[in-house]
Amino acid sequence: MSYNSFGHLFRFTTWGESHGPAIGCVIDGVPPRVPLSEADIQYHLDRRRPGQSRHTTQRREPDQVQIQSGVFEGLTTGAPISLVIENVDQRSKDYSDIARKFRPGHADFTYQLKYGIRDYRGGGRSSARETAMRVAAGAVARKVLAGAWGEEFRVRAALVQMGPHPIDRDNWEWDAVDDNPFFCPDRQAAQKWEGFLDGVRKAGSSTGAVIEVEATGVPVGLGAPIYAKLDADLAAALMSINAVKGVEIGAGFEAAALSGEENADEMEMDGDQVRFRSNKAGGVLGGISSGQPVVARFAVKPTSSILSPRKTVDMDGQDTEISTKGRHDPCVGIRAVPVAEAMMALVLCDHWLLHKAQCE
Amino acid sequence: MSYNSFGHLFRFTTWGESHGPAIGCVIDGVPPRVPLSEADIQYHLDRRRPGQSRHTTQRREPDQVQIQSGVFEGLTTGAPISLVIENVDQRSKDYSDIARKFRPGHADFTYQLKYGIRDYRGGGRSSARETAMRVAAGAVARKVLAGAWGEEFRVRAALVQMGPHPIDRDNWEWDAVDDNPFFCPDRQAAQKWEGFLDGVRKAGSSTGAVIEVEATGVPVGLGAPIYAKLDADLAAALMSINAVKGVEIGAGFEAAALSGEENADEMEMDGDQVRFRSNKAGGVLGGISSGQPVVARFAVKPTSSILSPRKTVDMDGQDTEISTKGRHDPCVGIRAVPVAEAMMALVLCDHWLLHKAQCE
Amino acid sequence: MSYNSFGHLFRFTTWGESHGPAIGCVIDGVPPRVPLSEADIQYHLDRRRPGQSRHTTQRREPDQVQIQSGVFEGLTTGAPISLVIENVDQRSKDYSDIARKFRPGHADFTYQLKYGIRDYRGGGRSSARETAMRVAAGAVARKVLAGAWGEEFRVRAALVQMGPHPIDRDNWEWDAVDDNPFFCPDRQAAQKWEGFLDGVRKAGSSTGAVIEVEATGVPVGLGAPIYAKLDADLAAALMSINAVKGVEIGAGFEAAALSGEENADEMEMDGDQVRFRSNKAGGVLGGISSGQPVVARFAVKPTSSILSPRKTVDMDGQDTEISTKGRHDPCVGIRAVPVAEAMMALVLCDHWLLHKAQCE
Amino acid sequence: MSYNSFGHLFRFTTWGESHGPAIGCVIDGVPPRVPLSEADIQYHLDRRRPGQSRHTTQRREPDQVQIQSGVFEGLTTGAPISLVIENVDQRSKDYSDIARKFRPGHADFTYQLKYGIRDYRGGGRSSARETAMRVAAGAVARKVLAGAWGEEFRVRAALVQMGPHPIDRDNWEWDAVDDNPFFCPDRQAAQKWEGFLDGVRKAGSSTGAVIEVEATGVPVGLGAPIYAKLDADLAAALMSINAVKGVEIGAGFEAAALSGEENADEMEMDGDQVRFRSNKAGGVLGGISSGQPVVARFAVKPTSSILSPRKTVDMDGQDTEISTKGRHDPCVGIRAVPVAEAMMALVLCDHWLLHKAQCE
Repeated sequence: MSYNSFGHLFRFTTWGESHGPAIGCVIDGVPPRVPLSEADIQYHLDRRRPGQSRHTTQRREPDQVQIQSGVFEGLTTGAPISLVIENVDQRSKDYSDIARKFRPGHADFTYQLKYGIRDYRGGGRSSARETAMRVAAGAVARKVLAGAWGEEFRVRAALVQMGPHPIDRDNWEWDAVDDNPFFCPDRQAAQKWEGFLDGVRKAGSSTGAVIEVEATGVPVGLGAPIYAKLDADLAAALMSINAVKGVEIGAGFEAAALSGEENADEMEMDGDQVRFRSNKAGGVLGGISSGQPVVARFAVKPTSSILSPRKTVDMDGQDTEISTKGRHDPCVGIRAVPVAEAMMALVLCDHWLLHKAQCE
Repeated sequence: MSYNSFGHLFRFTTWGESHGPAIGCVIDGVPPRVPLSEADIQYHLDRRRPGQSRHTTQRREPDQVQIQSGVFEGLTTGAPISLVIENVDQRSKDYSDIARKFRPGHADFTYQLKYGIRDYRGGGRSSARETAMRVAAGAVARKVLAGAWGEEFRVRAALVQMGPHPIDRDNWEWDAVDDNPFFCPDRQAAQKWEGFLDGVRKAGSSTGAVIEVEATGVPVGLGAPIYAKLDADLAAALMSINAVKGVEIGAGFEAAALSGEENADEMEMDGDQVRFRSNKAGGVLGGISSGQPVVARFAVKPTSSILSPRKTVDMDGQDTEISTKGRHDPCVGIRAVPVAEAMMALVLCDHWLLHKAQCE
Repeated sequence: MSYNSFGHLFRFTTWGESHGPAIGCVIDGVPPRVPLSEADIQYHLDRRRPGQSRHTTQRREPDQVQIQSGVFEGLTTGAPISLVIENVDQRSKDYSDIARKFRPGHADFTYQLKYGIRDYRGGGRSSARETAMRVAAGAVARKVLAGAWGEEFRVRAALVQMGPHPIDRDNWEWDAVDDNPFFCPDRQAAQKWEGFLDGVRKAGSSTGAVIEVEATGVPVGLGAPIYAKLDADLAAALMSINAVKGVEIGAGFEAAALSGEENADEMEMDGDQVRFRSNKAGGVLGGISSGQPVVARFAVKPTSSILSPRKTVDMDGQDTEISTKGRHDPCVGIRAVPVAEAMMALVLCDHWLLHKAQCE
Repeated sequence: MSYNSFGHLFRFTTWGESHGPAIGCVIDGVPPRVPLSEADIQYHLDRRRPGQSRHTTQRREPDQVQIQSGVFEGLTTGAPISLVIENVDQRSKDYSDIARKFRPGHADFTYQLKYGIRDYRGGGRSSARETAMRVAAGAVARKVLAGAWGEEFRVRAALVQMGPHPIDRDNWEWDAVDDNPFFCPDRQAAQKWEGFLDGVRKAGSSTGAVIEVEATGVPVGLGAPIYAKLDADLAAALMSINAVKGVEIGAGFEAAALSGEENADEMEMDGDQVRFRSNKAGGVLGGISSGQPVVARFAVKPTSSILSPRKTVDMDGQDTEISTKGRHDPCVGIRAVPVAEAMMALVLCDHWLLHKAQCE
C-alpha cells in the first residue's frame, strides 16, 4: 500500500509540497501505444490554473507540465510516466506566524501531532496545489479512455451550488460552463454568484460549494463487487480532494426520502438496446456501471484561510488568535471542478483495466 | 489488489452467496495476543440478525459464527482468522422469474452483463447477507482497538432519518437506540416510524434511510494523506455497503452553504489539552483524525424489492414486468446500523496499524 | 497488503493451522464462466496427499476439498471462491515438549519472539499442511489457463536431486514421474533413491532435494517490468514454500560461470515463427515471458524434524535438547513437487490477467 | 498493484529510461524526522557509478541526485520523497541497428511483443541504469534503519565469484571490498580477476558473477508468514535486478545435499541471549528473521551485449546477425554489488514497518 498513490491498476503517485522546488506524479500501468503529448495534459491544467480571474488565488503559477518518461515518439510505451511541474511563485515570506500556530480548519494541527514535524510553508503537502497532479494524471486517463471508448465518452463537471446559492437545474447548459469564471452551467446563477463572491472576498471571508461530475459513454460492467465497487472507489477519489466533506452518487441523500417505486429505475427495450427510464442510480447498480451516465456530486467546505481573527492554540500550548492573510481562493470549490473531472476519469480508467483483466 | 478485500493492513476478505452453503471471511493482519471468542463476535451479529421484529426480513438465520483459525487458547496468534456462518434458511423456491428478468434497482442487469453469468438465488453475491461478515470482522477490530485504546473508545451508530422523516436531534439519547426496532436515538421519532413503516410494508413498498455513526476516544493522528486519508477510506467503506448512495463527514453537504467563519472549528486550551470549540470537521482535518469524535453519515436507498409491478426487460431482450414477492426488509437501512459501526471500527483499526508502522 | 495472500489480480489467501478444525483459502479475481468442480481440484490434492508411500509422513488426511462459493451450476461466477479442507487426523498427543522448547530449524523460535504466542500443535500456521491450499488454488489457476491457452499449455514438475544424488538428465522421461513415489523423471535414479531414503528414514534423519518445474505453451508477453517481473514473482512464489532455500530460473547459478557467447540464446526464424536456439534464459527475458518453456528450479532443505537429539533452548532461557518423534516426511521435497506446479500455474495465471489489463 | 513499485509499506516507485531526460523514484511511507541529505544518498550512488575503472562501462554519468520533496530542514516529514538524477551522457548515436533487430539475451524481443512498441535507445526502461534509483532508495532505507537499530546494523555485499572463478572464503576480508574495482573480499582473487576480466573485455566478450549480501544487527521478528516472508520478499527483490538468474538464502542450494543433522542450526544460551551454533538458515526461520545475520546470494548472467556476431531475427521476421558495439560492462555483476546492499536494506526497512504495524 502506498499513502500517496491512487488506483488499482492505473495507478498514480503524487509527490511535492506547495513551496518545494516542484510537484509531480508517476503514473504506472498506462497501456502502451496511446498518443500522448504535453499539450494534451496542459489543456486541462490550464483550466485549473490559479490566477485566471479575481475569484481565485492570485498566486501566479504557469503550471507547465513536463513528461519525463514513458513516452517514445509520441506514444506511451507501457513504462511509468513521470510528470513534473516546477513551482515558480512560492513567494518568500515570513512564516513565523503559521509556523507556530495551528490554523483552524487546516491540517496544521493534525500533521504536527501525527508526524512531529510539518512543512508549514504554504500548507506543505496538504496544499491544494497537489491537485494539479491529479488533473495531469486525469488527462492521461482521458487519452486512454478516448482511444478505447471513442467519442461518446465524455467527462464533464460543473459547480452547482456556491455557498447557499444552488443553480436552477432547468437552466443547465453545458456550454455555459466555460463561459464564466465559476464553471457554472446556469448563466443566471453565474451572474448572481459574481456579486456574492465579490462580497465574500472583500470581507476576507470564504464560502463552500457543490460540484457535480458526470461521465457519459461509459460501457456496462465497470466496477468489481464487493470492495472495489465503482461507486466506492469514486467516493474515495472525491473525498480525497482537499476540503471535500460529502459525496453522493445519483440521487444521493435524496434517495433516503424516496419510496422503492420512486427510486428504482425501470428498464425497457429501445430497439435492441436496454434503456433505463430514469437515472436515480447515477449509473451504478451493485457497484457496477450500468451504461447510463455515471453521476456524482460532492460538497467542498469554505476555505479555512480567512481574514477574521480566529481563536486557536500554538505549539507551546498557549491560547492565541490567527488571521490568514495572503493569496487564497475565497471559494476553493471553483478550482475543484477540473479536479473532479480528473478523478472521475482516473477511476473509470482504472476500472476499465480491472474489467479487462477479469472479464475479457 | 483483491476485489473482495478491504483494508490496507487490517485486511478482511469476504466470500459467499446468499443461498450458498455458507458465508465467511478471512481477517489478516490481526495483532497477536488479543482475547477473542465467538461470543465477542456473536454479540454484534445478533444485533444485525434478520427476523427480530416485523420490520425486517422474515428470513430466519441464526447467524452462528465459528472461528476456524488464528486463535489459540483464547488469544489471537497473528495468523489469519477465518470466520464462517452457515446459511440455514435458504428457502428453496421457484427462481424462474428472477432468473430471466432483471429487477430494477438491483444488480441483476449489471452482474449479468459484466460476468455473463450470475447466481440469481437470493441475489447471490450482491445480497445484503454479505454484510454479516462485515459485522463479524468489525467485532474483531473492536476487540483490537478496545485493547489498544481503552474504554474511552466507542463506536456507535443510529438511524437518524427514515424515509422523509428525520429525527429531532434535540431528543437524541444514545440509550434509546437499543430500545426500539429501528436503532433510533429519538424515542418520539421511533414511535412515529412504527406507523410509517407498517404502512410501507403493508403497501408492499419500501423506504430509504440515513444512518449516523460516531467513534469517540480515537487518538489524534490516524489517516495518511493524500490517498489513504481517514475520511476517504471511510467514504469508500460506507459507500461499499449495499444500497448506500451518499456519504458525509462532519457537517457534510451543509458545509457547502457555510462561510469560513462558521465552518472552521476554533481551538483553545483546556488545561494542557487542546479543545475544539465545535466539530464541523467531523473529527478529521487534512485526512487525519483530530482527537474529536469521528462522525459520518450515509444515505441508504429504499429496498428495490417491492410488490408493485415494475417495467423491466428479460434476458431475451423483451419488455416485461416484475414484482418481487418474498421476504424483504421494507427499510434496509435499519440493519445497516450495526454494519456502519463495523465499517467505522474496521477503518479505524486499519489506520491505527498504518500509523504505528510509519510514526511509532 | 495481506500477509497471507499471493498474487496481484488472481489472488488467493490461505488460512488455517495444522491442528485446527480446517484449512482453507479464498481465491479472488477468478474470471467468470470457467468450468470448475471439486474433482478438478481433488485430482491435484491427491498427488500431494500424505501417507501414499512409506516415504512420506504417515499422517492420514483424506484432504477432501469443498467449494463453498463462487461457482454456480458448474461455472465460476467471478465471485470469490472459498475452498476448505477439514483436518481429520490431528492426532491428539502430548505437546508439552514442543510447547516449551524451540526445535532447531523450525519456526518455533521466530514465531514465539515475533508474536509472543504460537500455536505449537503440529507446527500451527508454519506447517507444510498449508501447501495443500496452494495446490487447490493452483488447480483453479490451471483450469483458467487451460481454457485460455488450450492444450499446449502444461505445467509439470519433478524431483531432480535427492540429498546429494542428482538425476542423470539424459534419462529424463516425463512419463516416469508418476511411476515412482518421488516424482522422479529418471527411473534409474528413482530406484537408487529408494534405498537411500529408506536409510535416511530408518536413521531418523532427513534429506534435502531439488525440484524443477516447467511450463510450456506460455504465450510471449507475461511479466511486467520492473518490480512485477515474471521471474521475480516466481522467485517469491517458490521461496515462500516451506523449507525452500534457493531458486533459479533457466541456467540459474550456472549462468555466473558462462561467457556472453554461451549464455545469450540466439534466435532464428522457423517459418514465420521465431525460434530460440537454446533456453539458458528459462523462458524469461527482461522479466517477460519469451514463449519458450518457463523453467525454474528450487532447493528444499532437509526436514528439521529428526530423531537425533539436538541442542536447543527452552522458553525459560535454559539450554536443553530435543528430538522430534512422530510422523514426518524424511524428504519434504517430494511433496513439494505438486506444490511447485501449483505456484507456477498461479504466477502465470496472475500475470496473464495483468497482461490483459494493460496490453489487450 | 504497481508494476514499477516495490515494498509493502516502505514503498518506492522508479521511473525513467536510459536515454530519457532523467531517471527518478518516489519513496512513500518513510517515517518522519529521519535526518536525510543528498550527501547521504550520493555516497552510495558514487559506489555504483559507471566509469570508475576500466572494468565497467565508460558511460560518464555524474549521477547527481536531487531531493525534490519530503524533506524539510534536513528531516523527513513523512511525505513522499521524490529523487531525481538527470541523464547527462546519453550519447546520440545511430540506433538503426538495434531499433530493427532483437539482441539475443536482451529484453528487446519481449518488450516489443508485449507492448508493441519499445524505447530502444540504450535499452530504454530495461537498462541497468534503473538500478541507480534502487541504490538511492536503499540509501534512504539505511538512514531509517540506522536511526532505529543503531550502529550494530550494517548491510554489506561483495562479489564472491567472477565467471568460473570463486573467491577463497578463507581469505574473506570485508575491508578488502573497497580496495579493488570488483568489490571482492579476497585480495588474491581480486588480483587474478584483473587479468581474467581484461581478457574478457578485450575479446569483446562478457562474464557472469555471484554476489553475496549480508545484514547484521537485524532484530528477531521481521517477516510475515506465509506470503510476506522475509526470504520470499528478498528473493523477489534480488531476482528483480537486471540479469539475475538465481537467488539463495543461507546454505541455499547446498542445503539440498545435507542431512537434517547437518542443516538445522542448533541453539544455546550465551548468558541471557540465545545463540545459534551455525547459520545454515541464513538468518531466516519460517520466513522470519532470527537475529542472526541475514545472508543471501545471487547469480548474475554475463552481459548480453557482446562483440561477436550472434544470430538473431529482425522486426520484419528475417534472419540476421547482430554484434553490440559501444560502452558496456563486461561483468555487469560488479556494479550489482551496491544494488544488492540497497535491495537488502529496502526489504528490511519494509519489514520493520510491517512488524511495527502488527506486533508493537
